[in-house]
This record gives sequence, C-alpha cells and structure tokens, in this order.
Amino acid sequence: MSIDRLQERIDKMQNPTVVGLDPALEHIPPRMLEKHIAKKGETLEAAASAVAEWGAGLIDALCDIVPAVKPQMAYYEALGPEGLQALKKTCDYAKSKGMYVICDGKRNDIGSTAEAYSAAYLGVVKVGATEHHPFEADALTVNAYFGTDGIKPFIETAVKHDKVVFALVKTSNPSSGELQDMAIGDRRVYTAVGDIIEGISRDTIGAYGYTRVGAVVGATYPEEIVFLRDRLKHTFFLIPGYGAQGGSATDVARAFDANGRGAIVNSSRAIIAAWKKAGGDYASAAMLEAMRMRDELRQVMHG
Amino acid sequence: MSIDRLQERIDKMQNPTVVGLDPALEHIPPRMLEKHIAKKGETLEAAASAVAEWGAGLIDALCDIVPAVKPQMAYYEALGPEGLQALKKTCDYAKSKGMYVICDGKRNDIGSTAEAYSAAYLGVVKVGATEHHPFEADALTVNAYFGTDGIKPFIETAVKHDKVVFALVKTSNPSSGELQDMAIGDRRVYTAVGDIIEGISRDTIGAYGYTRVGAVVGATYPEEIVFLRDRLKHTFFLIPGYGAQGGSATDVARAFDANGRGAIVNSSRAIIAAWKKAGGDYASAAMLEAMRMRDELRQVMHG
Repeated sequence: MSIDRLQERIDKMQNPTVVGLDPALEHIPPRMLEKHIAKKGETLEAAASAVAEWGAGLIDALCDIVPAVKPQMAYYEALGPEGLQALKKTCDYAKSKGMYVICDGKRNDIGSTAEAYSAAYLGVVKVGATEHHPFEADALTVNAYFGTDGIKPFIETAVKHDKVVFALVKTSNPSSGELQDMAIGDRRVYTAVGDIIEGISRDTIGAYGYTRVGAVVGATYPEEIVFLRDRLKHTFFLIPGYGAQGGSATDVARAFDANGRGAIVNSSRAIIAAWKKAGGDYASAAMLEAMRMRDELRQVMHG
Repeated sequence: MSIDRLQERIDKMQNPTVVGLDPALEHIPPRMLEKHIAKKGETLEAAASAVAEWGAGLIDALCDIVPAVKPQMAYYEALGPEGLQALKKTCDYAKSKGMYVICDGKRNDIGSTAEAYSAAYLGVVKVGATEHHPFEADALTVNAYFGTDGIKPFIETAVKHDKVVFALVKTSNPSSGELQDMAIGDRRVYTAVGDIIEGISRDTIGAYGYTRVGAVVGATYPEEIVFLRDRLKHTFFLIPGYGAQGGSATDVARAFDANGRGAIVNSSRAIIAAWKKAGGDYASAAMLEAMRMRDELRQVMHG
C-alpha cells in the first residue's frame, strides 16, 4: 500500500526527509540557466528545460539517501505549459529512480471537479478507450476547507489507484492561527479538520497503522504536533517549516510514534539552495545538506 | 481598475453571469473530439486540442451577451501539459474577444510559493531580462485556510498588475458547513474569513465601492448571502451553485446591492452542456441557455 511504501523507504534509509523541489529561478545555478537561454532565448521554454535538468541532477544526487521528493507546483506553473512539462518529466524521473513523489498542489474542489484534479495527479484519464496518466505522483496535497465533499473524491481516487492524499491541518506560517486556531466548543478549527480526515479514512489503514490520508502539520508549532500525534493515531504527518522557516529537529521529534514512524519532514531551500552558501556543485551541496539533516533527524526519530 | 471593468461589462450587457468552462470530456460534442482523435490518436494532445476548439466556439457564441468566463483549471490539468496549453489559448482568446477571465484554481500557499502562483496567473515571470505572462487571467480564485499570509501575496500581485482575487468564503456544497459554519464566539468560520478579506483589501476600493478581493459565496445558501452582503459591504461576490447545484434566481437576488451591482453568478454545466438536452449545435444551445439565465437574473438584480 502506498503509505506503507513511503514508510518502508524511510525505514530502509533511516531518513524521514522529503526534499521540496521549489524551482524558483533564483535557485537554479546561473550557468545552468544561461546554457538553456543560449539555445532557446530568454523564454519560458528555456527556463523550463533548465528546471527539468536541475531537478534530474538533484534526484540523481539524492535518490540513494532521501526517500521522497515534493515538487512544489506553483513554481512549475509559473513557467506556463512548458513548466508543467518539466513537472511531468521531474515526477517521472524521480519515480524511475525509486523515489516517492508528493505533488504539492494544495488542490481543493468538490464533485466532478475534485475528481478531475485527482485524476490529473493520482489517477487516469481516458481519451477514447486509451488510459493516460496526465501527471503521475504517489501523493497529492489538498486543502480541506470544503469539508468532506472536498476530500472524498480525492480519497476515492487514492483508494482506486493506490495513492495517498495529504490534507492541510495546521500549517507552518505565522498567521496560520487566524483561522486554524479558532476555538469551536472545546476544539480548534485545525483539530476539527484533523478529526474529519482521521474519521473519513479509517478503513484505509495500512501495515504500519497509517491511512491513505495524511496531515500537513507545521514544524513551527511543536505543541500542536504533540497534541495532534496523540489525537490522530492513524494519520501520517507531512511536516513543513523545518530549517529555513525555523523548525528544529527537537521541534519535530514528537511527530514520530513509539517506533520512530508516522512522519516525514520537508526541507526545501536549505537543501536545494545549499550551493549558495556552500559553493561548488549544486547537487553535491544538496547531498551534503541532506545528509546533515538526515543525521540530525536520526537522533530524534526514536525519541 | 479591474473589478470596475468587470462591473462595467456586467452593466453594459445587463447580465451578471459568468460562464464556467468545465471541459470534462463528456461535455465535448463527440464529433468534435473524434475529429481530433482521427488526427492525433487517442492522446491527451488530441483531447486538449478538442477542448481548445470547444472553448473558442463557446467564447464566439457568448462574448456579446456574457461578460465573463471562468475556466475551471482541474479539467485542463487533467489533460496534462497539453491541457494547460489549451487553458492558455482559451484565456488568451477570451481576452481577445473582450471577455473578463476568472481562472478558477482555488490556489493557496504562503510566501514565495504564493508569489509564484500569483505570478503564474496574474503577474509576470522574468527569464533573464524578458518578461512573460505564463497564463494571463483577470482574476484567480484562492483558498484562505492559511490566513493573511496566504492571501497577501496574491493581493500584492493583484495591485501591481491591476487584477482581482476571489477567496472562498461560504462554498455551495452540502458539507460546506462542517468547517465553515463552526461557531467561534459570535461568529462563524466563514464570517471570520469574510472579515479578513474585507479588512485586508480596504485600501483597494474602486469606483463602484468594491475591492480587488472578492468572495466566493454559494447560491445554495441564500440566508448566508443576505448576511454576508450586509456585512461585507465592499466585497464583490462570485456566486457558484446556480442551476445544476440547485440555487435559483430568487436565492441569489440579495447578493446584489441597491444598485443591482456587486455580484456575478456562475453557471457551468447548464450552459456548456445545454446541447445534451436541447440538441443541435453546442454553441447555439449554450447561447440560448445563457440568454435564458440572463433574462432570469435581470428580473432579480434590481430587487
């Protein structure tokens, strides 16, 4: 089962890290971008092919030590249709190297529209009698503001095609409390979202006790991590906010269960832009930083 | 100013309708799809070029009687990178025909990621010294679960490039109340979201009293429409849920202000798939249904 495969890769590498691929053009080494501009001019197509090459280089450097990548769709969309072509290539290449691919699109809608989103990233689309995978990821992030109607179509696709969905619960940003922390009776809004996803996915529990519907919980809110880990026993956590946003290894320590399982921690800029501080080749700099983060997390994941 | 241009087009046509372009392949007339399959095989490319032709036909039929279109991004994404090419063509063609284009992507994120989304649909992206519009819409729908951090970057882009953002407030689906109606003190969650967007956009009020940040409010909740119209005096409403989802002209009547302004009502399936019931050419069937809806709304928009 898909969430089990993610856990098994984490176990095998003893590394609960997902590397966020955020290809803002300022993170691409200038010489790499210039090479594509020299061929194709200052076009989105040139930028997109530089981004695809950059992603492949990172995947080559990371695939033996990091279990998963999380392409951030916004940056690919910012390069137009060619950017989406680069996203597709990057997802396919990561999968060919055995990596678990979490498309970070925070998609949300209802009914047949939600079905279309889930088909795009987790399912199949039929043209005539021929089935296609428009983009093929292992998991997709979603936003649950619509309530159950907005989550169920994604779960149905995930069940049918053995995939996973991660819903935003408590996000890592400073103002996340404005809505998410509001008190409703004895719960908060984020607790209510957590309860909905834990409830709705109960019949999809895999070998390690986790369902097909994970939760996004920010590393910047360690108390909420402790509270949610205790409350949502079958929900796998995707943890952003580590490193650049201020979350530490100690902050995320309690996201793991008694077996050191049930969570994966994202780092984007600290790894992909490590070359800016460390100098040298961008892929080697990313690998060194990923190893440093892995060693840091290893010390805390078993409590 | 962008929201004024939308209001002026509505005033000129005396039609507060936006047509939702939801190109699920079952809504494309079979002969049109088959023509592209004959040329390009049962590929996503064939489907995408059929969708682009379909969209252009609808725009030709509707541009003199309907002020705006709302491409639903999920269906374009479901056709892969080629689908996004069809989205770009459709946005560009609608704009060339003078229509106001609302990209319905319900995007959401924080910081530089939110900036990348807003650059993709509302702004510009620089490659070297050259500026590009990856997709060019007049407005984008967003989801405010992140709080202010998740809305501000979109507003900043909207201000810089004279665009508009519509945030989900009270959605039209049956389970929207699960989170959105939860009581927090004397407010509900959707009221809190409405208050945030009305507050954050106050210095962007245009000629008709409305800001650059609109609210999505479902036609299926007429009492909430009345409440929100009264509370959010400077917030333009985008109203889904009319027709196929059950909202009537009477239900949406109170979304308009005393001058019959401040709201636009979406219809997707009832218009774009009218050919399935009415028979004949899909574009003519859409035009007739759009005229019927216009006449119905005209009767209620002035109270």
